[in-house]
Amino acid sequence: MAKTHSDIGLIGLAVMGQNLALNIADHGFQISVYNRTTEKMEAFVAANPDTPGGVVGTKTLEEFVASLAKPRKMVILVQAGKATDAVIDGLVPLLEQGDIVIDGGNALWTDTIRREKALREKGLRFIGSGVSGGEEGARFGPSLMPGGEAGAWKELKPIWRAIAAKVDPKTGKPLTGAAPGKPVKGGVPCTTYIGENGAGHYVKMVHNGIEYGDMQMICEAYALMSGLLGLKADEMGDIFTQWNAGALDSFLVEITADILKQKDPVTKRKPFVDVVLDTAGQKGTGKWTSTNALDMGVPAPTIAEAVFARCISAIKEERVAASKILKGPAKKYRGSKKALVQAIHDALYCSKICSYAQGFQLMREAQKEYKWKLNFGEIAQIWRGGCIIRAAFLQKITEAYARNPHLANLLLDPYFNKTVKAAQENWRKVVSLAAECGVPAPTFSSALSYYDSYRSARLPANLLQAQRDYFGAHTYERVDQPRGKFFHVDWPEKNRPQLDA
Amino acid sequence: MAKTHSDIGLIGLAVMGQNLALNIADHGFQISVYNRTTEKMEAFVAANPDTPGGVVGTKTLEEFVASLAKPRKMVILVQAGKATDAVIDGLVPLLEQGDIVIDGGNALWTDTIRREKALREKGLRFIGSGVSGGEEGARFGPSLMPGGEAGAWKELKPIWRAIAAKVDPKTGKPLTGAAPGKPVKGGVPCTTYIGENGAGHYVKMVHNGIEYGDMQMICEAYALMSGLLGLKADEMGDIFTQWNAGALDSFLVEITADILKQKDPVTKRKPFVDVVLDTAGQKGTGKWTSTNALDMGVPAPTIAEAVFARCISAIKEERVAASKILKGPAKKYRGSKKALVQAIHDALYCSKICSYAQGFQLMREAQKEYKWKLNFGEIAQIWRGGCIIRAAFLQKITEAYARNPHLANLLLDPYFNKTVKAAQENWRKVVSLAAECGVPAPTFSSALSYYDSYRSARLPANLLQAQRDYFGAHTYERVDQPRGKFFHVDWPEKNRPQLDA
Repeated sequence: MAKTHSDIGLIGLAVMGQNLALNIADHGFQISVYNRTTEKMEAFVAANPDTPGGVVGTKTLEEFVASLAKPRKMVILVQAGKATDAVIDGLVPLLEQGDIVIDGGNALWTDTIRREKALREKGLRFIGSGVSGGEEGARFGPSLMPGGEAGAWKELKPIWRAIAAKVDPKTGKPLTGAAPGKPVKGGVPCTTYIGENGAGHYVKMVHNGIEYGDMQMICEAYALMSGLLGLKADEMGDIFTQWNAGALDSFLVEITADILKQKDPVTKRKPFVDVVLDTAGQKGTGKWTSTNALDMGVPAPTIAEAVFARCISAIKEERVAASKILKGPAKKYRGSKKALVQAIHDALYCSKICSYAQGFQLMREAQKEYKWKLNFGEIAQIWRGGCIIRAAFLQKITEAYARNPHLANLLLDPYFNKTVKAAQENWRKVVSLAAECGVPAPTFSSALSYYDSYRSARLPANLLQAQRDYFGAHTYERVDQPRGKFFHVDWPEKNRPQLDA
Repeated sequence: MAKTHSDIGLIGLAVMGQNLALNIADHGFQISVYNRTTEKMEAFVAANPDTPGGVVGTKTLEEFVASLAKPRKMVILVQAGKATDAVIDGLVPLLEQGDIVIDGGNALWTDTIRREKALREKGLRFIGSGVSGGEEGARFGPSLMPGGEAGAWKELKPIWRAIAAKVDPKTGKPLTGAAPGKPVKGGVPCTTYIGENGAGHYVKMVHNGIEYGDMQMICEAYALMSGLLGLKADEMGDIFTQWNAGALDSFLVEITADILKQKDPVTKRKPFVDVVLDTAGQKGTGKWTSTNALDMGVPAPTIAEAVFARCISAIKEERVAASKILKGPAKKYRGSKKALVQAIHDALYCSKICSYAQGFQLMREAQKEYKWKLNFGEIAQIWRGGCIIRAAFLQKITEAYARNPHLANLLLDPYFNKTVKAAQENWRKVVSLAAECGVPAPTFSSALSYYDSYRSARLPANLLQAQRDYFGAHTYERVDQPRGKFFHVDWPEKNRPQLDA
């Protein structure tokens, strides 16, 4: 029997919105839904008459708001940017003090900061919540990263914990089953309060940047096995299946195995990957992560390389034309297949560690800038289920921050340090082979440069700063003087451009 | 004898402003100067009583504007950003239709577009001009990159051509001499009209991004010679001197030789570079270039790696701490010194070509976005003298665009293609050795990945797009179907997160 007022509302019934609404209703919460196009709302309500919680259709924002129990909680799932602002503008005059607006879209965190402030000044509460896991995650259990006022989070918490993905508390592995729609007993929900204002959307952005890195690294492993060893899709599929049983156990490695074993649904003969065009799209969050890294001056080169790799993939015609003109090396790999496959595995794992290290350093710096108190162990924990980057690996990150909450860099944790130490010879071999044999491996190489730079007590930037002092009088610091004391050399004039007589 | 009205005015008498004013006065133009702090202006005028053109001090903006011949031309050289806006706001009410405001600061090109539009709407003219070459360039001949209304450029042109650096029309080499202050006879001035509104500042920004790349690449060559061969500063100085006599002939290589041969002015014994702290500063234009590349989706990974290398250099304490924990490889280089030095030379040259290719691709894309008509050959030409990246190499770029003004990528030009073809084995060897021996070479590696990606008719992005189709239903294109037709596989449910019973 329907309640007089719904527990929560949702605006925006595209696939993500529909799925999140059904997930909420599955867990016994009554949900009101609104969509700008009424037909879409009506079709959705008609198609889902028997959910445990119940779906209530509303045709106007007024009706929508009136249907919600107070303090009202409403999730917006429309396109990030102007559409979100438009919905908020429509809602605000209808709301009462203490009502809670939740943005579940992929908002830029600075927009979330702005919106939270604007609503707070009106006595309203705003939560920007990252929702990760794509359409299927939204439907059956996403990873949820809410940021905003702590009191508002308390109101939302029971629903968010109920609908989030669940992981086994001991192994950290996602709990899966055959019966969607029945609440899981036990299991740790993949959601936690991230921090004030834009913290949730910031962490979601970094998650996506890391996802860009993970995907590109898997592609490089695939390209190296194919390019250096001539392996076929099926065989590589088996290798990824094996890898998925070990340290690389993760959603992306698992689906890569599926993809590589998949036959082309059209020709029915060829491996599916062989008929897919090699141009990858992007939606911008990887770019945001890289741009933010540049803005904050935090090194995240490996994530940036992953974004640029997508950009190069997009200029297909240019590459095809260039391939006819630019020649590669003659060198071929002639060593053991088994050894090289293991080396590629190790290169992938080490590169992944560096990419995550960069992502966590970004969050560390952002928390200083925005005065958040991020719990890095918990963040890794809620990424273990629901989201695209879910992986056994994240358990290791949680454990690392449990050992040392103030860890300066993931690489310094004993487990990761030991892992890289053991695997680095293979990693170096792969990067070296890629260079010599002409297989592009931008993220593997960049991650290795990052590792070698980070562990360098001394980098050649002394020469660079000397150049800056030479042509721009930018001054330099000395190794034998305290930091913050600046010196300048009066360089000779001979190299300076002068007017001739 | 002083003219009743000055030919041009200049606002902002920091070092850059003072030097540009003296350069202008040296060429017979009478210049009015204004500075917010009057004492600074008075000291400057008093110190320079006998310039060929004459320097006229003014104490207020009113007096400054009244002192200029019509249409008035005035150069602003204050800090980029708010300070520039403040000066413009102060000037506007004092100006008349057709007057020309020139911003010579390092403005963000989008600010220049905004300012040009705002002034145009008031009947005023605005030129945003990149000024490259640092303080010495400003004094004795900078490279000047003006963008704005073509008619305004005509007014400014005689002055800009007079004060710009000059190069030999045949060799492209900067003309230098012993007598500053005397106009050069002949020589091609390093300035040309770049394009509408923000084009000049955009091109200046890309110039700076390229400069970041050049500087980091030289540092990597230095680090490799030092790390793999144990060469001392003096010896490396000699090598850079040799390199400067060949294809790498450039200002930055030349000053690197000077720097490496320089003794520490304090201890008088040690090589200067050995006492300089390895932390490099940055002022933001490299970051802007990288951010813009990400925003436009144009691959410029090598320039971004150079920016990130400065960021890693900045976290000195973190690196020193990490160096005690993270271990490198045992492998050492044991081959020929001479061969490796030559290989490092080749790696530097090939990486440089890729970095410039990225910069020119950025300009190509920006010109589409902003409807500029950039002349890439001329841009390379005006960089041959005056600016920090001046190099014999730029002559090759000018020649490449003369051969083919529609060149898609510098790498495709016969000269550059041939060069890379001949040098690539060495380049690959260096990147490979860097990886195996643990010397970070982020830009050398990134440039090689860029080269290998750009010449790949097929990249592994097919797998990446298949992943996107798998978890996000992002669809894919097929190799056997026309572009723009999108397909989707109905992937199995097994991997999707589900609720357990």
